[in-house]
Amino acid sequence: MKYFTTVNDIADPMALVKEALKLKKQPYAFSELGKHKTLGLIFLNPSLRTRLSTQKAAMNLGMQVMVMNIDKEGWALELEDGAVMNGNTVEHIKDAAAVMGQYCDIIGIRCFPGLTDKKADYCEKILVQFMHHCKVPVISLESATLHPLQSLADLMTIEEKKKTAKPKVVLSWAPHIKALPQAVPNSFAEWMCKAGVEFVITHPAGYELCEDYTSKAKIIHTQEEALKGADFVYLKNWSSYHDYGKVLSPSENWMMTKSKMELTNNAHIMHCLPVRRNVEVSDELLDSPQSLILQQAENRIYAAQAVLKTMLEKIS
Amino acid sequence: MKYFTTVNDIADPMALVKEALKLKKQPYAFSELGKHKTLGLIFLNPSLRTRLSTQKAAMNLGMQVMVMNIDKEGWALELEDGAVMNGNTVEHIKDAAAVMGQYCDIIGIRCFPGLTDKKADYCEKILVQFMHHCKVPVISLESATLHPLQSLADLMTIEEKKKTAKPKVVLSWAPHIKALPQAVPNSFAEWMCKAGVEFVITHPAGYELCEDYTSKAKIIHTQEEALKGADFVYLKNWSSYHDYGKVLSPSENWMMTKSKMELTNNAHIMHCLPVRRNVEVSDELLDSPQSLILQQAENRIYAAQAVLKTMLEKIS
Amino acid sequence: MKYFTTVNDIADPMALVKEALKLKKQPYAFSELGKHKTLGLIFLNPSLRTRLSTQKAAMNLGMQVMVMNIDKEGWALELEDGAVMNGNTVEHIKDAAAVMGQYCDIIGIRCFPGLTDKKADYCEKILVQFMHHCKVPVISLESATLHPLQSLADLMTIEEKKKTAKPKVVLSWAPHIKALPQAVPNSFAEWMCKAGVEFVITHPAGYELCEDYTSKAKIIHTQEEALKGADFVYLKNWSSYHDYGKVLSPSENWMMTKSKMELTNNAHIMHCLPVRRNVEVSDELLDSPQSLILQQAENRIYAAQAVLKTMLEKIS
Repeated sequence: MKYFTTVNDIADPMALVKEALKLKKQPYAFSELGKHKTLGLIFLNPSLRTRLSTQKAAMNLGMQVMVMNIDKEGWALELEDGAVMNGNTVEHIKDAAAVMGQYCDIIGIRCFPGLTDKKADYCEKILVQFMHHCKVPVISLESATLHPLQSLADLMTIEEKKKTAKPKVVLSWAPHIKALPQAVPNSFAEWMCKAGVEFVITHPAGYELCEDYTSKAKIIHTQEEALKGADFVYLKNWSSYHDYGKVLSPSENWMMTKSKMELTNNAHIMHCLPVRRNVEVSDELLDSPQSLILQQAENRIYAAQAVLKTMLEKIS
Repeated sequence: MKYFTTVNDIADPMALVKEALKLKKQPYAFSELGKHKTLGLIFLNPSLRTRLSTQKAAMNLGMQVMVMNIDKEGWALELEDGAVMNGNTVEHIKDAAAVMGQYCDIIGIRCFPGLTDKKADYCEKILVQFMHHCKVPVISLESATLHPLQSLADLMTIEEKKKTAKPKVVLSWAPHIKALPQAVPNSFAEWMCKAGVEFVITHPAGYELCEDYTSKAKIIHTQEEALKGADFVYLKNWSSYHDYGKVLSPSENWMMTKSKMELTNNAHIMHCLPVRRNVEVSDELLDSPQSLILQQAENRIYAAQAVLKTMLEKIS
Repeated sequence: MKYFTTVNDIADPMALVKEALKLKKQPYAFSELGKHKTLGLIFLNPSLRTRLSTQKAAMNLGMQVMVMNIDKEGWALELEDGAVMNGNTVEHIKDAAAVMGQYCDIIGIRCFPGLTDKKADYCEKILVQFMHHCKVPVISLESATLHPLQSLADLMTIEEKKKTAKPKVVLSWAPHIKALPQAVPNSFAEWMCKAGVEFVITHPAGYELCEDYTSKAKIIHTQEEALKGADFVYLKNWSSYHDYGKVLSPSENWMMTKSKMELTNNAHIMHCLPVRRNVEVSDELLDSPQSLILQQAENRIYAAQAVLKTMLEKIS
């Protein structure tokens, strides 16, 4: 595995889940594998869980970690080939990426979408150029359109908690006060479509996700209809894909509550965090035994560790 | 020891001082104790000495260290239980703390007071909630009201330098241009009251500290009277506790000078740094052989190391 | 070697180059040398290559690294002896440096010039005071006037690529939209003057560098004249030294292009990065096989490692 930016980068997602669950039991079993190997973590946007869990994963494998916060304004990267750089950009991404690839054995990079130019966001301008120029294995720490480390941790969590061979998993849009990226729901959708679960997405009209990721999902616009018999309910806000980056106002209240959850098969609640409590999901659900939010967050360590281990085995 | 946030968290302060002084002589004697253990250092306010000395202490014990600067505005934490989070806060402290507790074996956290709401500051809203939700041992890296790592280092320094069994230690208010927290003087007072020294506090009227920490101290409002026969003089500014967070203007000049020090028993000068030279204390004192400011700063390493060692021994 | 701030700090520059080239072949040959030794990297100005390459170098030697970003405004240091600190500065450099020297075995520090007060910049006020007060070995990570780690990496690169015993090396001023420091060209000049090469500097009138560094160089104001027969062409912008910190407008276009390079002996192109593409140098040159920019950047690791190794051998 040279890149980890989408579920399509891996041959067998469930095998990776099993590897991650094994590492969760024995985190230090490969603590020599990363000796003299350096992981560079580059953040063009802020991070809490992703930075700490990935750093921890690397240290469990004996790697060194260097963190770079490249504020877009402080160290603006030029993305256009052939640009005459007499403006605000201080370095071309081809130079920055090539240099960082010389200093690191594996690079993780986070770059959020601008949410104004759909085409630029969805062609993953920054990530793709970075991968092309840095020459070393690259892990997405959440790109403009996908967040595969989160989805791998989510799938691990479902695997740990599922009671039937083919559980029903519902991704439900949730309210928020800001325009958020589609990366987490896109990514969750593409992983669920490969995970051997019954996968349903529910959201208000106008919030359809990009079909590249949802073509195998069942989409239901009535939240209560979708929830029936669910084993897992994943809550997440996203901004409109078709009316790109916009916040639409649904007429119903889409916040997940205990009374709505009564329609499910005593389902577990999932969320990638940070969660806007009592806006996206009610406190009583988040603090209930059915909530998996902390387990998902803990699994982020071992998701990252499984990916790093696979990459290290290739480059050692 | 699960928490280190006040002198009351430890059974025997002098035993901890002795442990720290032993580590100062052999910093690497326990360099395997922290293997595969991670210290998370969370700063809601900036830090220089505390970050570097605590990081160094952890590395001396073989720990991994992850530093998180959580700017209050950039990643505002919600503190109210049951809040409808449709405002500026992006994550509830209960979620942030619980997640960080999963990624770290021990957590250090710094959170200064706002100096506007005395009750909120003195109930240590952030620290207490963080401890409650993170589940792992917590070290205060200076809270709203106390700074125990500083006080432990101060007590180590007095122990190293004292010439009599029961030296006279004077804490003297010093001028400053800003409103500063009461954490360092509160903390110094609560440690000195347990340290077997003769402890005197001197400050202008109106600068009385919270009595929870000073009830066993002798308080004298005339600086020159207080200094008589002192063996150690600790200088520090603080804002008013009773007229909360305010800067009052004393009629006398409270800056410590060489001529005032002639009243003492050739006392040592102490300050936690950073010091406003020639405002709080004169250069000639700070640069004299009687100054212990650098020794205090050096001892910060071993104070933190003694606390970490004690915690590691419990969780190993 | 206690300090590494100028070529004059080392007895034999070519011996250090050879040491660095040896480390490039065997980066982990001395991975125990830095055990229990801490490198502190202090940035008063932002850094990408320097931070990562120096951190990597230290880790290759088994050192621990602590990075401090001291924003000049956030933690303003007082530089004047005897100052009454009732203004914006929060700590005297004598205290900050002395404390950091207690926490670190070697310190690297970056402090750019203000470009308004030539005398203050060229007496290296911050660096010199820091060295004086911190007591431990100090490495310049680029000071107001020099950038020796860059020059050492540059000389390594020339040594690797030269085809004759005494190659012709041309330092050519290049256009830019901002006023940049003279540190890189000053430093390159002082190293080249000791390197046994034929060294020529070319720049528009008014861009003369400080003679302390260029007295042994041949200076030619006609770029095309200077380029004739060159084996290496080093491109770099700098602001005026004599009309201090100013950007003058040359009547000619000084951007380096392929057609100008035809005057050379099929010369290599060098630049310290970041480079303003198609302003300082054209894309076709930077992306050609003659470009050494990535090799220079890679050599930054081993330049730093050679310096650290030399220092560690002294203090072990």
